[in-house]
Amino acid sequence: MPGQPKKVCIVGSGNWGSAIAKIVGTNAQRHDNIDNRVTMYVYEEMINGKKLTEIINETHENVKYLPGIKLPPNVVALPDVVEAAKDADILVFVVPHQFIKTLCSTLLGKIKPTAVGLSLIKGFDIAEGGGIELISHIINKHLKIEVSVLMGANLANEVAMEKFCETTIGCKDKRIAPVLRDIIQTEYFRVVVVDDVDTVEVCGALKNIVACGAGFVDGLGLGDNTKAAVIRLGLMEMIKYVEVFYPGSKLSTFFESCGVADLITTCYGGRNRRVSEAFVKSGKSIEELEKELLNGQKLQGPITAAEVNFMLKNKNMEDRFPLFTAVHRICTRELASQKLIECIREHPEH
Amino acid sequence: MPGQPKKVCIVGSGNWGSAIAKIVGTNAQRHDNIDNRVTMYVYEEMINGKKLTEIINETHENVKYLPGIKLPPNVVALPDVVEAAKDADILVFVVPHQFIKTLCSTLLGKIKPTAVGLSLIKGFDIAEGGGIELISHIINKHLKIEVSVLMGANLANEVAMEKFCETTIGCKDKRIAPVLRDIIQTEYFRVVVVDDVDTVEVCGALKNIVACGAGFVDGLGLGDNTKAAVIRLGLMEMIKYVEVFYPGSKLSTFFESCGVADLITTCYGGRNRRVSEAFVKSGKSIEELEKELLNGQKLQGPITAAEVNFMLKNKNMEDRFPLFTAVHRICTRELASQKLIECIREHPEH
Repeated sequence: MPGQPKKVCIVGSGNWGSAIAKIVGTNAQRHDNIDNRVTMYVYEEMINGKKLTEIINETHENVKYLPGIKLPPNVVALPDVVEAAKDADILVFVVPHQFIKTLCSTLLGKIKPTAVGLSLIKGFDIAEGGGIELISHIINKHLKIEVSVLMGANLANEVAMEKFCETTIGCKDKRIAPVLRDIIQTEYFRVVVVDDVDTVEVCGALKNIVACGAGFVDGLGLGDNTKAAVIRLGLMEMIKYVEVFYPGSKLSTFFESCGVADLITTCYGGRNRRVSEAFVKSGKSIEELEKELLNGQKLQGPITAAEVNFMLKNKNMEDRFPLFTAVHRICTRELASQKLIECIREHPEH
Repeated sequence: MPGQPKKVCIVGSGNWGSAIAKIVGTNAQRHDNIDNRVTMYVYEEMINGKKLTEIINETHENVKYLPGIKLPPNVVALPDVVEAAKDADILVFVVPHQFIKTLCSTLLGKIKPTAVGLSLIKGFDIAEGGGIELISHIINKHLKIEVSVLMGANLANEVAMEKFCETTIGCKDKRIAPVLRDIIQTEYFRVVVVDDVDTVEVCGALKNIVACGAGFVDGLGLGDNTKAAVIRLGLMEMIKYVEVFYPGSKLSTFFESCGVADLITTCYGGRNRRVSEAFVKSGKSIEELEKELLNGQKLQGPITAAEVNFMLKNKNMEDRFPLFTAVHRICTRELASQKLIECIREHPEH
């Protein structure tokens, strides 16, 4: 991608989207190959009688989703995604995954034909016919653009506060990779680019299933050894999953931030772990706990476990993924959480 | 190893040694290929006017090092290591590593020539001439017996309480591997055997350096992302270390319990992490904190970091292992802990 400075549009403005906008805006100021003006599509909301886009453009702060953090003034919030994306060479997708298809329909035919995408969206989509589809593949299919992905041990608030961390970009195109690195990497946010794109994305979705397992262990009071075993067996199932469904993947990708590092963070600090612990201790349903603990937001782990299980069942492969299977069955109360260990005792990895 | 039932001797009786004695004793009762009588060498001490070996043999409890846990009655405590080991086909070494050379001298010529060893000892020894020597190699060299190793995410007390966990045995000999598995594996303690013996052992030592780094991050209040990055970069240095100094090792071994699982447990729950956090927060020296927090026991991480650094410096390779190097320099106060991130910001993995 040589030539003119690249224009970047951030499609999304939640707390992760805003943290990334801060990074991209700052990098646009210091790199000649990036256009200084960075657009950010903001789903318009009224905050105390004023439009969120106006607040962001005047105060340079996303008061709703990333309060207390200043965005660079060259990040321009726009309420119309077509307007925000129209000249962009790089579209950074960072919206909840249920919105992606509508978004793509809206953008179809209205973006540069040479644009490329970078998806930060975690999760799967159910494919027609019973399989699972990656979000980057959906974007690619609908918009006919090449899509790279970014995943890592990146809690948004810590990134926004400039606490040191790493991330992984999965990008197949050697010409695009350096530009993506330039728009993302900072002194406190270090990038490793790998070409094993699907594995990077699959890690971001599957880790949440494992985190539910880790949360059950905590809820059952089983201790550090058991938790380590569940995390490790979960990792082995992630590897097996990619081996079976995305052949050609590399084992080394699991050693990147998107793999083992994100998995650890999620299994110790994440909300899938926390709600799963409460699930065992309280006896309440996932839905009740989502209302109580997450203001009604959906937990990613149980949904992903259900999607994966639907596919594994169809393919008669539940036995090869006993932890994924047990997590799904525990979430739906088909299985008592106390049975978790029985399900993995004779794990195929042993 | 077909033929007669194998006699097992546990050389050591600390809390890990006693937990393993419980397992081996129980397995001896249920497997025909293991002799029912399991000897355990106990360094004799007087407890309230009575010999520890007598207490163990009468009450079947190691009241000093694993109180509250019953040992099977077929585990026989003996104060003389030569007596304990003389008929053994399998010697399970589980003593602090500073005692291993003396122990080998004592046993030399007094064990079965066909005996094999299984080392549970974590740590390195300084080799003459400036390198590092593995404990299993020392035992092999001194006693001229084949030595396998066992390492994993195995906090002794949790194992003793029969909480589910996994472990890794590194064993090159395909005839010995099934016997070692039989003496070790239980319903709650699952074994994976790999033939990449040195890697298994090196993981057990190097993880403690990484745990010091994780503890510094906690002490500095840097958050979950940074901690995940330090753990991941530590893991990459462990992999690099084995690549450079133990060529022929396998990447997959790092996915075993001895690798990623033990590393996680140590970086979240272990005492190297805990003392390193206190080191940053209190400003006290490692020695002071060992006295205060560990009853004067030595912390493994700083020693291992010093040994490794001594060798890396000799070989002019400190730059390739910036985290190991920074941990050592922080432990000795050559470097302020606040400089940790600067040392790894431009890590060769990025």
